[in-house]
Amino acid sequence: MVDKHPAELRVAVLGTGLIGGSVLLRLRQQGFDVAGWDPDPRALSYARTHDIAFFEHLADAVADRDVVFLGGPLSTLPDTLAEVVKHTDPTCVITDVGSVKAPIARYTRENGWSHRFVPGHPMAGSEHSGLGSANPVLFNDAAWVLCTEPDTPLEPFRLLTALITTALQARVVPLEPSPHDAVVALSSHIPHLLAGSLAGSVARSQVRQGVLSLAAGSFRDGTRVAGTPSARTVDMLVHNREAITRSVTLVQRFLAELVDALERTDVAALTSAFEEGRGLRLALGDPTTRTITERFPVEGDPAAEFDFLVRLGAEGGHLTSCVVEDSTVVYTACRPTSPGG
Amino acid sequence: MVDKHPAELRVAVLGTGLIGGSVLLRLRQQGFDVAGWDPDPRALSYARTHDIAFFEHLADAVADRDVVFLGGPLSTLPDTLAEVVKHTDPTCVITDVGSVKAPIARYTRENGWSHRFVPGHPMAGSEHSGLGSANPVLFNDAAWVLCTEPDTPLEPFRLLTALITTALQARVVPLEPSPHDAVVALSSHIPHLLAGSLAGSVARSQVRQGVLSLAAGSFRDGTRVAGTPSARTVDMLVHNREAITRSVTLVQRFLAELVDALERTDVAALTSAFEEGRGLRLALGDPTTRTITERFPVEGDPAAEFDFLVRLGAEGGHLTSCVVEDSTVVYTACRPTSPGG
Repeated sequence: MVDKHPAELRVAVLGTGLIGGSVLLRLRQQGFDVAGWDPDPRALSYARTHDIAFFEHLADAVADRDVVFLGGPLSTLPDTLAEVVKHTDPTCVITDVGSVKAPIARYTRENGWSHRFVPGHPMAGSEHSGLGSANPVLFNDAAWVLCTEPDTPLEPFRLLTALITTALQARVVPLEPSPHDAVVALSSHIPHLLAGSLAGSVARSQVRQGVLSLAAGSFRDGTRVAGTPSARTVDMLVHNREAITRSVTLVQRFLAELVDALERTDVAALTSAFEEGRGLRLALGDPTTRTITERFPVEGDPAAEFDFLVRLGAEGGHLTSCVVEDSTVVYTACRPTSPGG
Repeated sequence: MVDKHPAELRVAVLGTGLIGGSVLLRLRQQGFDVAGWDPDPRALSYARTHDIAFFEHLADAVADRDVVFLGGPLSTLPDTLAEVVKHTDPTCVITDVGSVKAPIARYTRENGWSHRFVPGHPMAGSEHSGLGSANPVLFNDAAWVLCTEPDTPLEPFRLLTALITTALQARVVPLEPSPHDAVVALSSHIPHLLAGSLAGSVARSQVRQGVLSLAAGSFRDGTRVAGTPSARTVDMLVHNREAITRSVTLVQRFLAELVDALERTDVAALTSAFEEGRGLRLALGDPTTRTITERFPVEGDPAAEFDFLVRLGAEGGHLTSCVVEDSTVVYTACRPTSPGG
């Protein structure tokens, strides 16, 4: 592990699509020594014309770097990661920005790399893609999941938390890989299935033109992510297949329950079901949190620190900073005031 | 029928929730002689403190008015309409702003009022409600459906089209009532069912807190209308029960098709299905239209004018103005350049 102030870290970003590209642009804007690489030659040519440090070969991009961010399609991550391991010192910390975490966590554990790899997932994005759509403020106030697991060293997690909360201005949500995948199935992947189903049904409908003409807010909002490049959506879904198929039945059953109540004109049942969803929606807009500070010895038993982190994430809390002072690591965190509420 | 310039019309708005209230505030802002009425005493008291012309009794609000807009819950419209008919001259034109059109069109035809009642539906709104949330620019550039039917006089339709395109700055989409209801089932009502199902499923889920914490754009967009007051949503759904239950099976089947392909990791089938939805979504953001002008004799055979109007609406077009010059009615319209595309 490197022992540098976060601002002095030398960083590489591999796979500079919307997410990776936004990390690259942000760190560059913040004055970091940061270099990019992408297998798509259009990214290289865009970078060259915009004076962004970029390499043609992965090995050159990661040489002597302290931190490497891995972007790109989920299916490319294992091979790219193996390349990075080959071309970097063991002290180099690696993380990814993929939207599914259990498979990559399993892969790194099996390969003995989990002491230097931290699975990550920034909860930001848009239906656009590519370095040309990247946005240096994409992560401001966004949630950024960093995964922790029992029995893995916490130094890389602390380093990335410090970097992400300061330079990228995101809030770090610590979670274990499988709970993360269960959450994003509902918070992101199933919304893509619903948006695709709604837009696709209208595409097949006889009143297609009328719907396009009368589409108001509810239709525009409900289909926005159906504009995402399909290959990207499908790549994300197949990598989280198990968690999605487990949870989508909940949504299908809820919808069938609403349709059944509608067919019976059961106003009481409909109202009560919609009230459940409304409560959730209102809770989304109105989180009440309190700020706490927790200290752990840098070289102490990692179990207490690990427990604090995963409990914080599971309760819906997040970290706003991580500072190592002498032999103490100090976390500042926001915790919901009514976690069950 | 009154023979006044649109700007000289005396207007009443009954039921001053979000939609009716926005009509009232807009016409007032434009200098119209406009009065409001609502059965909820809070609306009266809000209007009094904000210096908005408002009456305690419906009969006083509609006395000597040229045009009456009917807002409020769908289930109240028939009774309120009967009251308006009782207290107004036969020359007074009445329209409503309800989101379902076939039942009210049938009701007015059965009562012999369809020569002076035009079913209407502005495609605007938000999850908020009440006169306090009303917004005078809510309808700027929004679609506003006005229904026409064979064998009903077109004068009230022309008058309202002139008023809505000028004073309210909306684009008027002419449709027959049943096609309107089929369209809004897909463009508005089913999006409410999906948003309610997604939000409700998360409310029941064990990872509720995690989803609230990681909710990014796709979840926020996909659940926004789940924040709508449940009684309003349910009122809307039950009045369009038949059209919704006919179309929601399309969406349920599309979703089941996606889930099935996901379970089989059938990337080709998933990608192709998502491409259908993506095409529709991209068409939504990029309408290409051309402007046309159509003229009809004011006292001629209404069949040609009627045909022009309903064909325009079915193709996804809309009216941007309606002017009666001497004995000619002149419509300006936007028509999609590739109606089947």
